[in-house]
Amino acid sequence: MSPRPIRYGMVGGGPGAFIGPVHRMAAALDGRYELVAGAFSSDPTMCRAMGEELGLGPERVYDDFRTMAAREGPRPDGIEAVSIVTPNHLHHAVAKAFLEAGIHVMCDKPLTTTLPDAEELCRLSEERDLVFCVTHNYTGYPMVKEARERVRCGALGVIRKVVVEYSQGWLATLLESTGQKQAEWRADPERAGLSSALGDIGSHAHNLAAYVTGLDVEQLFADLGTMVEGRQMEDDATVLLRYVGGARGLLHVSQMSTGERNHLRLRVYGSSGGLDWVQERPNRLRLLSPPGDVTVLYRGSANLTDRARAHTRLPGGHPEGFIEAFANLYRNVADTVLAREGGGAEPFADDFPTVTDGARGVHFIQSALRSAEEGAWVDASYEP
Amino acid sequence: MSPRPIRYGMVGGGPGAFIGPVHRMAAALDGRYELVAGAFSSDPTMCRAMGEELGLGPERVYDDFRTMAAREGPRPDGIEAVSIVTPNHLHHAVAKAFLEAGIHVMCDKPLTTTLPDAEELCRLSEERDLVFCVTHNYTGYPMVKEARERVRCGALGVIRKVVVEYSQGWLATLLESTGQKQAEWRADPERAGLSSALGDIGSHAHNLAAYVTGLDVEQLFADLGTMVEGRQMEDDATVLLRYVGGARGLLHVSQMSTGERNHLRLRVYGSSGGLDWVQERPNRLRLLSPPGDVTVLYRGSANLTDRARAHTRLPGGHPEGFIEAFANLYRNVADTVLAREGGGAEPFADDFPTVTDGARGVHFIQSALRSAEEGAWVDASYEP
Amino acid sequence: MSPRPIRYGMVGGGPGAFIGPVHRMAAALDGRYELVAGAFSSDPTMCRAMGEELGLGPERVYDDFRTMAAREGPRPDGIEAVSIVTPNHLHHAVAKAFLEAGIHVMCDKPLTTTLPDAEELCRLSEERDLVFCVTHNYTGYPMVKEARERVRCGALGVIRKVVVEYSQGWLATLLESTGQKQAEWRADPERAGLSSALGDIGSHAHNLAAYVTGLDVEQLFADLGTMVEGRQMEDDATVLLRYVGGARGLLHVSQMSTGERNHLRLRVYGSSGGLDWVQERPNRLRLLSPPGDVTVLYRGSANLTDRARAHTRLPGGHPEGFIEAFANLYRNVADTVLAREGGGAEPFADDFPTVTDGARGVHFIQSALRSAEEGAWVDASYEP
Amino acid sequence: MSPRPIRYGMVGGGPGAFIGPVHRMAAALDGRYELVAGAFSSDPTMCRAMGEELGLGPERVYDDFRTMAAREGPRPDGIEAVSIVTPNHLHHAVAKAFLEAGIHVMCDKPLTTTLPDAEELCRLSEERDLVFCVTHNYTGYPMVKEARERVRCGALGVIRKVVVEYSQGWLATLLESTGQKQAEWRADPERAGLSSALGDIGSHAHNLAAYVTGLDVEQLFADLGTMVEGRQMEDDATVLLRYVGGARGLLHVSQMSTGERNHLRLRVYGSSGGLDWVQERPNRLRLLSPPGDVTVLYRGSANLTDRARAHTRLPGGHPEGFIEAFANLYRNVADTVLAREGGGAEPFADDFPTVTDGARGVHFIQSALRSAEEGAWVDASYEP
Repeated sequence: MSPRPIRYGMVGGGPGAFIGPVHRMAAALDGRYELVAGAFSSDPTMCRAMGEELGLGPERVYDDFRTMAAREGPRPDGIEAVSIVTPNHLHHAVAKAFLEAGIHVMCDKPLTTTLPDAEELCRLSEERDLVFCVTHNYTGYPMVKEARERVRCGALGVIRKVVVEYSQGWLATLLESTGQKQAEWRADPERAGLSSALGDIGSHAHNLAAYVTGLDVEQLFADLGTMVEGRQMEDDATVLLRYVGGARGLLHVSQMSTGERNHLRLRVYGSSGGLDWVQERPNRLRLLSPPGDVTVLYRGSANLTDRARAHTRLPGGHPEGFIEAFANLYRNVADTVLAREGGGAEPFADDFPTVTDGARGVHFIQSALRSAEEGAWVDASYEP
Repeated sequence: MSPRPIRYGMVGGGPGAFIGPVHRMAAALDGRYELVAGAFSSDPTMCRAMGEELGLGPERVYDDFRTMAAREGPRPDGIEAVSIVTPNHLHHAVAKAFLEAGIHVMCDKPLTTTLPDAEELCRLSEERDLVFCVTHNYTGYPMVKEARERVRCGALGVIRKVVVEYSQGWLATLLESTGQKQAEWRADPERAGLSSALGDIGSHAHNLAAYVTGLDVEQLFADLGTMVEGRQMEDDATVLLRYVGGARGLLHVSQMSTGERNHLRLRVYGSSGGLDWVQERPNRLRLLSPPGDVTVLYRGSANLTDRARAHTRLPGGHPEGFIEAFANLYRNVADTVLAREGGGAEPFADDFPTVTDGARGVHFIQSALRSAEEGAWVDASYEP
Repeated sequence: MSPRPIRYGMVGGGPGAFIGPVHRMAAALDGRYELVAGAFSSDPTMCRAMGEELGLGPERVYDDFRTMAAREGPRPDGIEAVSIVTPNHLHHAVAKAFLEAGIHVMCDKPLTTTLPDAEELCRLSEERDLVFCVTHNYTGYPMVKEARERVRCGALGVIRKVVVEYSQGWLATLLESTGQKQAEWRADPERAGLSSALGDIGSHAHNLAAYVTGLDVEQLFADLGTMVEGRQMEDDATVLLRYVGGARGLLHVSQMSTGERNHLRLRVYGSSGGLDWVQERPNRLRLLSPPGDVTVLYRGSANLTDRARAHTRLPGGHPEGFIEAFANLYRNVADTVLAREGGGAEPFADDFPTVTDGARGVHFIQSALRSAEEGAWVDASYEP
Repeated sequence: MSPRPIRYGMVGGGPGAFIGPVHRMAAALDGRYELVAGAFSSDPTMCRAMGEELGLGPERVYDDFRTMAAREGPRPDGIEAVSIVTPNHLHHAVAKAFLEAGIHVMCDKPLTTTLPDAEELCRLSEERDLVFCVTHNYTGYPMVKEARERVRCGALGVIRKVVVEYSQGWLATLLESTGQKQAEWRADPERAGLSSALGDIGSHAHNLAAYVTGLDVEQLFADLGTMVEGRQMEDDATVLLRYVGGARGLLHVSQMSTGERNHLRLRVYGSSGGLDWVQERPNRLRLLSPPGDVTVLYRGSANLTDRARAHTRLPGGHPEGFIEAFANLYRNVADTVLAREGGGAEPFADDFPTVTDGARGVHFIQSALRSAEEGAWVDASYEP
């Protein structure tokens, strides 16, 4: 028997959005979801236009998310899950409304703009026994999963050093002053939260390193910079990390590194080996050996672990990309939702970033902001 | 108004198939297709299992493609298009049946196993005014389209030399003797046609070079090899090309190049520049300049031509892959189908490989087989 | 008329040394030097063995450097220059002895183990009007010189961010406890000075960034780690930089990054472009443009600036490496020495790291050590 | 005891030459040679200018090579070896003159312009028991030697396919009509011999493949092209190879591939693995494994074979290049010459391309020219 598709709705993702369409493509790719409702924009005209474009019945297109939650919850054919792709400042309220309506949540990152908000979502999703995925999508790549498995099985020995970088150049000019929608809200403290670079991409970098290494940050020292004149928040950040157990880390992110596209890279060095993964060449994982030789594993190889192989669709040499990785989150959430209905659990169904991971990310951002303000090392340990 | 999704069916693509799921994902990605019918396997049990897995009603799952064509054609809610993903020897009969039922066709390559069969499909699709796409999917990549535009606008000057290579290693052992489904039919002359390497991957290489350069082959010299003992058809082929107008080409393909994954690469050298595209790094196009410096263009760049930009979904640095390129064919076919209903034509809607391109491919394979048999240069010019 | 070869001697570089032979090959490559004297080892037997191996007359092989300086200085055919390739703690005394004997100096880095020592050498070389080169050899690469020129001519706009990394893995084990000669002295505070990673490779990274950007460090924050148990000095260091004028920098070096060979990389981001140079692929310079496209310049290209072209020997595609870059320092010193005899000055003859650059490096190391000790930002401005 | 330097002279290599300085740097690098005589140019003024620039006594600078051979042969301090770096048409006469004078020979490639000439040099060097090295320098790279060893030890299984390519773009225009010295003689049948692309770079490609695989060509089919108008000889060539034992090969070279610098690449595919070496990244050897994963070996690694390690000077990550590889030929010849004096033989001293390899190259070129003329496969087997 085939798994039935999950009925889902979307909040945000109206005309001109970037991440909304990504969620929709990720949901569509494997045929595991059916989009049946949405509150796509706070502008009713744009909202309806998007509903129509997506082929939704007008009664399932809502002017505001609260109405949507209120109506979809009780409907027998109501949505089972919601994708939240609004600017950051709305994540909390939207997620809360849908959780309270008994609806599973896929929420973009960062989870919230304050830690108490994040923790409230943790509590709510636990109380209601609802699935809550925060789309730290980069951990959806099969070769990231392979990296995680290699670390876990001890192939690198004891982890000593982590270097994670996320460099972009799209904000090398004051783009937010030109009316560009993405830049506008991401650079606006009202909508993005207290942080720009750290919130938008630092949270991904932090999550990626945590996912692969399994290490928790104990202390950190952060240095933030605003390098483009007229900008309100930081567009550059470096964070020195001390992990529980003694490993050291370096996390650096930038939105004003002119000419960089989306350069997320993770390197992990252990006592007996190293690894190197670059998001812009995601089908590859480089394993470094002590004499300096490198084994390059490719997605699709028969040498990969079960976890990596379970998250890929094509043979080696047929590149998978960003959407496929994103779709892995959606697919695992679908499997998890169905398993709760009593279906058998798929292996690795629980392999997606949760609301707790989201809270960890918020805590990390806040700790970094505090360190930067104090110009000092701060305690960054956290147990959500 | 949103474009409505096209109702489509599938022939082939049952359990364990490789290319069937690719077509389904490509069709699903943009929400432009709805799978409503299928004849997935000649084994009725497997066929039904696949129909169920895909959520089709039992009355839309057919034991044989002829019944499917006969019933779907007249239904008011019948399929408008069919995807043919069977072994090669069936392409002709299946395509013919659906064309005769007035249904548009997406057919995997090579189009047919004989030239007369290919030409019959050309005629039929023209007579019935039906859309017929042969899924030479590699031309769906945005950076291949960029390459085409750069050649067309004269950036390379007069084309002098083309080197196109397609190397794989998956048939470096006698895999077809192990029961592996893919290898079994592709290495079986009854099902694959007269050629293995040339038909399976040589046809892609030929199409890619033709698409980018716009050049027609005038003469060729082919040398085929069967390097794995026990194999019935060639697993290695080199073809020397003379293009109309004097350029030279070298096309070489292999299925037994141990360790190669899916190494399709096109290089074009002109009087004032060169270009280099590698399928395993598809988001990149290298432009070679006379002093030896290289400009690397990336998908998503603002510097790309309209054609390339119209065929991409994500910003730079967010890798797109094989499925996205494949989906570009599906999307353009959908636009073309809808335009025939009177909708406005989307720009570039006609940018997909047609039945005529398919016939060119079959002619190329046959010419190469003839040259190899004769050990001599042969005339390879063709006007379908 | 040909430039006559410079007579030179060497202190250090006995059997088993790494950098001594490099200096000899660098001096030999262009035929601009003649090795005529040496004090190769503090062990007289090894010293004499090396002298013999190098074909020196026994009277020109000295048991100690002081005797060598004392005798070579007055000889009419005495050495004009000396190469100092001893462990760090001897640099000062050796350099001083030869300067006082009126002999030009090529000294390995770091210049000295204390700043007063470094400054004394600055004074001495200036008073005696002697050439003093500190072999920060990485600035000898033609593509590093190209990078410098591109920055100077404004191709990147205003510099905003510098990322320089130097990662090695050779000390990922406690190699110094195994009798390995290189590791032994470099990890020994008595011979290496107060720092290991910073002194050995951090000083190169600092010099490279300074050479290319022309920026001076104003403040820094350093974090040092000793990650291999039993080690006496740091094998990992991260330094946050604030440059005069407001640019930010990140310098990170490691000797225990398992699997890294000699990964020195410099990236510079400005308001209108970026650049990226990697020592392990030294014939290349990547120029990053705002839309994310990359121009890759190659050594030997006709597009390079005069400075780069003056420091290369072979056409493009014929790789030059470490020794050739090193030899560029030697050649420029030879030109400078001869120019002082009244010969015409060669263009770019003064393009080599000087004793002043060496003092800057020592100051940088000391500032970083101080910051790490205090756990605070420190003033790092320096005018030697 | 140190090996004493070999006294050598040079024929050709006057002002403006490319390969002459390369030979001189290669000879100088390791201090194993001393240049003491030369006939650098047929123009006496230029010849003397070069002699002076190189610091030679005027009595050791000769207006013509015959006088040089006649005088240097009998001198007690006469040259022991000669480097021949003239245009191709002179190789035979010069080499013959020096062999007859009892002098060892380093001769650039191709060895001669006719096979009988080549064979005469084989006979002469054997009769006189003189060392004769033809500078197919690419086999001097350590990672090429590693490739050879890996093939020899069976790591690839039975060799099935060889792809060797040598693409350049420097003759993409009619450079020979501009007075450029290199282009002028290499494109002139009188001085280059009957072939341009095949002779200049095809001979390197052939030699490289033979060195690594140990396979002999049995049959070949060649197709030559002259793609730049006004050119007298071929600037593009493709040669299909059948090796003794059944492996197939593809050799393609070009001088008009606009934008290529010096792209020599060798790939070898066997029944159980593959390898890939690219001259422009010479410190690397890629080993391909059946599932498509790749092990990248780097020069300097402790994992390399003795042969590779014996031909390298620097640790991993410190790039070696073209000159270092070239110098390996010179060093091995020096070891061989000294061993004949009764010194102990160094391991791998005989690892350089000999006059016999040179004759094989000439035979290969002639076979290819014949095949191209006949438009047919020809027997290419040869036992010198």
